[in-house]
Amino acid sequence: MERLPGFRDFYPEPLPANEAWSCDLRQHIFARWRETARRYGFREYDGPPLEPLELYTTKSGAEIVSQLFNFQDKGGRDVSMRPEMTPTVARMIATAERAYKKPVRWFSIPQLFRYEKQQKGRLREHFQLNCDLFGETDPAADAEVLALLIDGLRSLGLTAADFVIRLSSRQAWQGFFHGRGGDPARAQEFYQVIDKIERERDEVTAERLRSVGIDLADVRAFIAAGEPTPDLARVLADLSARGLAEFARIDYGVIRGLAYYTGIVFEAFDRKGEFRAIAGGGRYDDLVKLVSGGKADLPALGFGMGDVVLAELLKSRGLVPSFAGAVDVVVLVEDEAMRAESIGLVQRLREDGRAVEFALVPTKGDKQFKRALELGARVTLRVQSTPTGPTVLVKSLADRIQREVAMADSVAACRP
Amino acid sequence: MERLPGFRDFYPEPLPANEAWSCDLRQHIFARWRETARRYGFREYDGPPLEPLELYTTKSGAEIVSQLFNFQDKGGRDVSMRPEMTPTVARMIATAERAYKKPVRWFSIPQLFRYEKQQKGRLREHFQLNCDLFGETDPAADAEVLALLIDGLRSLGLTAADFVIRLSSRQAWQGFFHGRGGDPARAQEFYQVIDKIERERDEVTAERLRSVGIDLADVRAFIAAGEPTPDLARVLADLSARGLAEFARIDYGVIRGLAYYTGIVFEAFDRKGEFRAIAGGGRYDDLVKLVSGGKADLPALGFGMGDVVLAELLKSRGLVPSFAGAVDVVVLVEDEAMRAESIGLVQRLREDGRAVEFALVPTKGDKQFKRALELGARVTLRVQSTPTGPTVLVKSLADRIQREVAMADSVAACRP
Repeated sequence: MERLPGFRDFYPEPLPANEAWSCDLRQHIFARWRETARRYGFREYDGPPLEPLELYTTKSGAEIVSQLFNFQDKGGRDVSMRPEMTPTVARMIATAERAYKKPVRWFSIPQLFRYEKQQKGRLREHFQLNCDLFGETDPAADAEVLALLIDGLRSLGLTAADFVIRLSSRQAWQGFFHGRGGDPARAQEFYQVIDKIERERDEVTAERLRSVGIDLADVRAFIAAGEPTPDLARVLADLSARGLAEFARIDYGVIRGLAYYTGIVFEAFDRKGEFRAIAGGGRYDDLVKLVSGGKADLPALGFGMGDVVLAELLKSRGLVPSFAGAVDVVVLVEDEAMRAESIGLVQRLREDGRAVEFALVPTKGDKQFKRALELGARVTLRVQSTPTGPTVLVKSLADRIQREVAMADSVAACRP
Repeated sequence: MERLPGFRDFYPEPLPANEAWSCDLRQHIFARWRETARRYGFREYDGPPLEPLELYTTKSGAEIVSQLFNFQDKGGRDVSMRPEMTPTVARMIATAERAYKKPVRWFSIPQLFRYEKQQKGRLREHFQLNCDLFGETDPAADAEVLALLIDGLRSLGLTAADFVIRLSSRQAWQGFFHGRGGDPARAQEFYQVIDKIERERDEVTAERLRSVGIDLADVRAFIAAGEPTPDLARVLADLSARGLAEFARIDYGVIRGLAYYTGIVFEAFDRKGEFRAIAGGGRYDDLVKLVSGGKADLPALGFGMGDVVLAELLKSRGLVPSFAGAVDVVVLVEDEAMRAESIGLVQRLREDGRAVEFALVPTKGDKQFKRALELGARVTLRVQSTPTGPTVLVKSLADRIQREVAMADSVAACRP
């Protein structure tokens, strides 16, 4: 029996043939994400992976349903596996906002699901770091969230030579559109054309822009000028004060597809342009109100960063660490008369924090030693019987130097 | 809009009114589980939360479908959200067993889903630590897995006064049943009666036992005697060698409901008997072969430990740590002329590993200080302008002692 197409198994390393996804690498990424969020005072939350279908159709309209893993549950409810986290976190904060001091800084690492049309390598699930800040309209909040995104990528070893944040603004494009007499009712339509400008042929874009009364050359000139809005100028100054200026630049070629963004928007890309966006986000000041049916009204902004493009980027830049050495100590049982003593020692070593393996059944000594080398162990221990009671032979595998210690000293002898 | 019944939101602490599930506590439990698994040389894996429906019906028969979140996906596939992890891990190891040295020691922390009949407090999802060991038939492997379970609970502060593992054996009951001339074709039916013996009225149990030719008093006497099988005697001796004897006892009142167990089975319970089982597992030597259609054949055993009963037990025993103090340092911005300097300092502190917050917008000094206290910060910093350039006032919040340091020394001054 095989797994479903578009879903991943995550194996421990070394990976089996034909398997690409390492659970070790995934957990390495998650650990760096969590550590960075912690440094920014962001607190972890999570919601259900299954939500009422309505949570998504309210925000994105009925057309989103074709991309969802949705169904009717045994109680007749229309439900969907979550395709994104923002509606869930908006629902959660709307319910509970009074319990938290503003601004609220939250993050989560949900697995998300989309029924994408099947294409080679196209996945139907991925994990995504979601960081959101609620309750602050000032661009200082936008800068704080951008700095978190930048440091999240830096924590994995990526530098300004590897990635850049392209900063844009819904207000900038709104000003452009209204300044040219665009019909406010067609603004979303206009944004959708801008969102596709880099992937679409120019003739098609020009035609679509004409239909909303806009000229392609005018759009191109606006992008080329890249004049920051007052909010963006504030964000750039803030990032400069943090020493992070080189990680971001104004780029109005970005606008983000989702309808709910209201202010600054951004995407992170690799500098070489080899991959799709690494992360994306922006300000969505009206969504909490929409999702809560008016019960709560909080300005908000945030971003999502997926594990798939990021893992590919880390691999291509040589930034995947070695995951060997998961075991510190191997206790060799060469004398079966010493097995009970050896097992007791294993237990004490583990209680002292060491990662320990030993041969569960009688095994040749050289085979046990070979296994210790394969596991990348730092130390082997061997309990030996002496006339005055058992002692322990401690061998450092780096230099193969062996010494004999008293049983009572053997646990301390294995501390790194 | 509300979340679905039986699903949980996990909020950061302090929890909002009417919310019971703390993401901080959840992550605390996960961290202890991961740390314990690491000490035992177990490696993390994960599989898809959505699997082919057939993966579950093959193992458990069609009747399981009524308890599943199953549906037909947009490609017409019959799929199900995973109700347990064992079929997934059996599928994964069957595919990849040649890549790994035996015994294979794996763990995972999946979220699992069951469409339980709606009852007060009855959940439809939970997280579960799954630890499995493949490729070893010797009872030493059973002891190793049991020790891991015991240490997983001890890592959370639980002691032998709080919980005990009830050890049993399918072979013991098989021997009993065959010894009384039971029909081998009805052995599973007999095990099901034993599995319910503690929850069912005696008259019902006696009647059901009679129908398979067994006497209740005989069963009671067998449980009371609790004579260990040779395998169980080996396990008890091994746990004794580890100093863990007090955490386990023979108890044939346990047999485990699932059909696929083949050897030693066990459940962990709180000593006071207040809660349902904390964890359960056993040996399932035939399942890999069944799930892989004969492609692979590996002896196996393992256990699952859920987060729900465990969290309740930790709460009732006062073993939930405080999750305040998520922020180390608050940088106070009392002089807006020093904001850029302050933001630069925030960045350097975070790069040094501190968790830092600061007021994103101009805020009264006493309000900022109050916020630092609420956050449980250890230190506040304040950048001040002096004729020779900015310096930093460092205040320890434990003793309220303040000292002035040079900007260049301020990051080091905040290290714990």
